[in-house]
Amino acid sequence: MEVEQIGVIHSPFHSKDECPIQPLYARDTIGTVEVFPEFSAGLKDIELFTHLFLIYDFDRAGAVELVRPTFLDDEPHGVFASRHPCRPSGIGLSVVELVERLGATLTVRGVDVLDGTPLLDLKPYIHRFDAIAEANDGWVTGREFRGKPAGRE
Amino acid sequence: MEVEQIGVIHSPFHSKDECPIQPLYARDTIGTVEVFPEFSAGLKDIELFTHLFLIYDFDRAGAVELVRPTFLDDEPHGVFASRHPCRPSGIGLSVVELVERLGATLTVRGVDVLDGTPLLDLKPYIHRFDAIAEANDGWVTGREFRGKPAGRE
Repeated sequence: MEVEQIGVIHSPFHSKDECPIQPLYARDTIGTVEVFPEFSAGLKDIELFTHLFLIYDFDRAGAVELVRPTFLDDEPHGVFASRHPCRPSGIGLSVVELVERLGATLTVRGVDVLDGTPLLDLKPYIHRFDAIAEANDGWVTGREFRGKPAGRE
Repeated sequence: MEVEQIGVIHSPFHSKDECPIQPLYARDTIGTVEVFPEFSAGLKDIELFTHLFLIYDFDRAGAVELVRPTFLDDEPHGVFASRHPCRPSGIGLSVVELVERLGATLTVRGVDVLDGTPLLDLKPYIHRFDAIAEANDGWVTGREFRGKPAGRE
């Protein structure tokens, strides 16, 4: 399917080396989301939510590998059991806190993407639907971000 | 961007009229996710997670309307402040519980999509990253699913 870009995400991260994985590790990082003028009407009422899903294009990801080590340990994991950028869809997903809306520009906290990342969609994070208290951490349990796996890009 | 289909979601819902919104309203609904053989290696370790994000193509959604009433009340809301299918990206997102994995077939609980929905990506729902206790429900607070807005498809 063809997916249209609706805006751009700005962050302080200009290279993959600077970029944390997942907003947990970027909890205080402020970024902005600019929605293109032709889509800005779709933002009505977004300021009522405290948190948003950003859906975006991993536009600078490397080649897809279905099984690979990640930024969390040296074990190879399936790409669908990880949030690694190098995935068939090329689609990224992050939850961020909405700090402020000024017109079609959203200030968000917890940005973990590269500056200039193409935005594909915004969806409200709805506590009632999305905060699953009983969910687990799978193989990520106890793992801490520790940079790139040895010898990997 | 062009996004490739990686599988198919099967559910008991064959028409929009039968289809609930969001897994909260389909909490006990069992469905299956079939990942195509050429992508099945990417499922390694997925069975370690209790919950998954399904990312899919709203392939039977109507025309995009940036501001519209939803299934939850008669107020018009911006499409980016709602999870409505008729959105510029055409991308849907649901959290489901992973019940069982048998090869490349996942049995999941809480499916809220139409049978035959094209699957674009699977990502692990990671409690530590994704269960945001302090998130709110925005305008959805107190709203219950009550079918289609009057006079809308």
